[in-house]
Amino acid sequence: MRAEIVSIGDELLKGQRVNTNAAFIAAALAGIGVPVGRIVSCSDLEHEMVSVFTESLERADIVLVTGGLGPTRDDRTRKAVQELLDRGLELSEDAYVNLADRMKQRGVELSESLRDQAMVIEGSHVIANTRGTAAGMIIGCGERFHHHYLVLMPGVPSEMKAMMELTVLSYFAALSTTAIRHTPVKTLGIGESTLAAMIVDIEDHLPQGTTLAYLPHAAGVNLMISSIGRKQEEVDSDNRSIVDAILKRAGKFIFATSDVTLEETIGALLSSRGMTVAVAESCTGGLVASRLTDVPGSSLYFLQGFVVYSNQAKQKTLGVNKDLIESFGAVSDEVARAMAKRCLEISGADIAVSTTGIAGPSGGSPEKPVGMVCLAIATKLSGTVLSKTLFMHGDRESNKFRFSEAALRELWEYLRDQE
Amino acid sequence: MRAEIVSIGDELLKGQRVNTNAAFIAAALAGIGVPVGRIVSCSDLEHEMVSVFTESLERADIVLVTGGLGPTRDDRTRKAVQELLDRGLELSEDAYVNLADRMKQRGVELSESLRDQAMVIEGSHVIANTRGTAAGMIIGCGERFHHHYLVLMPGVPSEMKAMMELTVLSYFAALSTTAIRHTPVKTLGIGESTLAAMIVDIEDHLPQGTTLAYLPHAAGVNLMISSIGRKQEEVDSDNRSIVDAILKRAGKFIFATSDVTLEETIGALLSSRGMTVAVAESCTGGLVASRLTDVPGSSLYFLQGFVVYSNQAKQKTLGVNKDLIESFGAVSDEVARAMAKRCLEISGADIAVSTTGIAGPSGGSPEKPVGMVCLAIATKLSGTVLSKTLFMHGDRESNKFRFSEAALRELWEYLRDQE
Repeated sequence: MRAEIVSIGDELLKGQRVNTNAAFIAAALAGIGVPVGRIVSCSDLEHEMVSVFTESLERADIVLVTGGLGPTRDDRTRKAVQELLDRGLELSEDAYVNLADRMKQRGVELSESLRDQAMVIEGSHVIANTRGTAAGMIIGCGERFHHHYLVLMPGVPSEMKAMMELTVLSYFAALSTTAIRHTPVKTLGIGESTLAAMIVDIEDHLPQGTTLAYLPHAAGVNLMISSIGRKQEEVDSDNRSIVDAILKRAGKFIFATSDVTLEETIGALLSSRGMTVAVAESCTGGLVASRLTDVPGSSLYFLQGFVVYSNQAKQKTLGVNKDLIESFGAVSDEVARAMAKRCLEISGADIAVSTTGIAGPSGGSPEKPVGMVCLAIATKLSGTVLSKTLFMHGDRESNKFRFSEAALRELWEYLRDQE
Repeated sequence: MRAEIVSIGDELLKGQRVNTNAAFIAAALAGIGVPVGRIVSCSDLEHEMVSVFTESLERADIVLVTGGLGPTRDDRTRKAVQELLDRGLELSEDAYVNLADRMKQRGVELSESLRDQAMVIEGSHVIANTRGTAAGMIIGCGERFHHHYLVLMPGVPSEMKAMMELTVLSYFAALSTTAIRHTPVKTLGIGESTLAAMIVDIEDHLPQGTTLAYLPHAAGVNLMISSIGRKQEEVDSDNRSIVDAILKRAGKFIFATSDVTLEETIGALLSSRGMTVAVAESCTGGLVASRLTDVPGSSLYFLQGFVVYSNQAKQKTLGVNKDLIESFGAVSDEVARAMAKRCLEISGADIAVSTTGIAGPSGGSPEKPVGMVCLAIATKLSGTVLSKTLFMHGDRESNKFRFSEAALRELWEYLRDQE
């Protein structure tokens, strides 16, 4: 079974939106052993959609379409499918009741244009929309299209994702016969070529059907170990053997071998050690606190954050010594250490992390260039303070993210090394 | 003149990488008046590439291809093009000298596999690679392909972007005769269907060549007004007339008609009014501060942020009255107002914004459900405090973002209404 993905929308063709939906769908399909042959972005003109759908349905068993299901005039996907399959629309009672209920909860009146959102292609299997108004559809396309399937979903990422997870994946997993296993190996603090050199012999002797891909990201590189075959047991075992070999070789750089974020990994370590954390940020402007609190349940271990952007805030709110700032500068190892130490004392947390640096584009000097950051960690337990100065080479956005990533990495390494 | 974009790489089809290259290329082409008809991601198998190239060259005057030009085994784009056009490879002297120079600077020896990176399709116009090793190519495909062009570039974003900006755009701008104008209309606080109803007659009478697209985002909807024609003057005037009509109708929901963010709009208003801001956040966990400090130069008006996640932090750091929290709950209009007021006093800022709410997934109750947020604004100038309670309906990530968006919206509305 083979799939293609069609993303509808002029905003994609004008470069006004990056197609993240297709990557999500492709990764989700890979998880149930359905490879994707092509991904096509096309305009919302009916004749163009009809020709793209026709071509994709010739090649692929399942064609997953996102976009063009909304209530406005440029939402023409249903019209194109009506023309393609020569079918009418019918009201989906389920979708209508669901829509009416949800609108009632929100106190919104059910207008004619909203009711239209429950109209589906005749003979569709309706996909409930738990996040929005437009109904999704799984459509068997009949003999003319080799009994292939067309899946229509909204282009709004949250609505599409919920449909994939709640309905589409289980629908097609039941029809798939390929066994597949993907394991991410998430690393920190090691570059692509260093990592590649470290595991070159493992890569040279991968089992048949297993591949290893390097996925560089903003602050390092992840690996994806993919195994495909007939029997799930063998596929799992091949996959596991490679993951284990890499863990043995490069374990200290690896923070996860599952789909968890660094923030979640840190949260789990804090929870399991019964520890609390607080942060004092200058250059990261709240990003470290925001990332830590992205994790559900983070209120159990995250106490508070100080975004001390101005020097006055560093002095008044955190009580960093004015002389220290004047002698060493706000971006200095000394000030970073003082920020962490004071943050620990004020918050009463077990660990405090601090950042002070220059995200740019202005504010740099030959001694302290844009991209420079000083980080520190203070802990109640050991009474010690760690600190580090690093240099990044990106624009403001990328520097700010890398600064936050470096702070989280220090925190992760500290927690990992605690027994 | 019409283009298509082909992105090569199995990592795209497995969802391991999001196709940001295509969006960049499409936006760059729009800038020189070359519309993109389709974007296709396909595998790095030769026969698949040959059939995708053949189809795209039938439809489009220019087919821009990224990926598959590197030195490793899975880089087969040149082979596919050799087969497609029945041409050999030749050494590009320019590319070779450039490569040799750059390797010498880095102290890297010029190996056979590196030399191969200067081999190009016979008869190509070579595109210098200023960031990497693989040469790019602009290839006239001859009569069989209607004299259409194939453009080959590496998949590494920085290399591709430099090639587009330094060579490809100017090459094709010289051949293009189309005038184009895109104007974004960025709104806040209004839903897609309400906005559509408000401007229905404008949409009904768009000038020939002008289109209007709805681009929903996490917290509302933006519009994109696109005009295309022969004369730049006429295209600009048509475009402007529609933007002006929409501004007249829905101006109070519109924060920008150019490519700026809400954070930048707020920053410009704060700067022009000579005002400073501070934030006190609970449920948004630092995201409001982080977004405000995403703007270059924000240190001129952003003083500090308090991420008071725990009740203790709300009391100890901000000095919110314990009885207030116990009587009304941490998520309450009263506590939001007290947070903003105390934040204003401690920071000495002109405006303070606060957030307290329940991002979920847990922590909700029938009276105070997940998605509820209380916001407040306190200002030095007017001595008054505004507050508002809102309800969102997303998951944790989406709620947190919408909370921050709502806080920024209140701030924007306040600033906009100041004379």
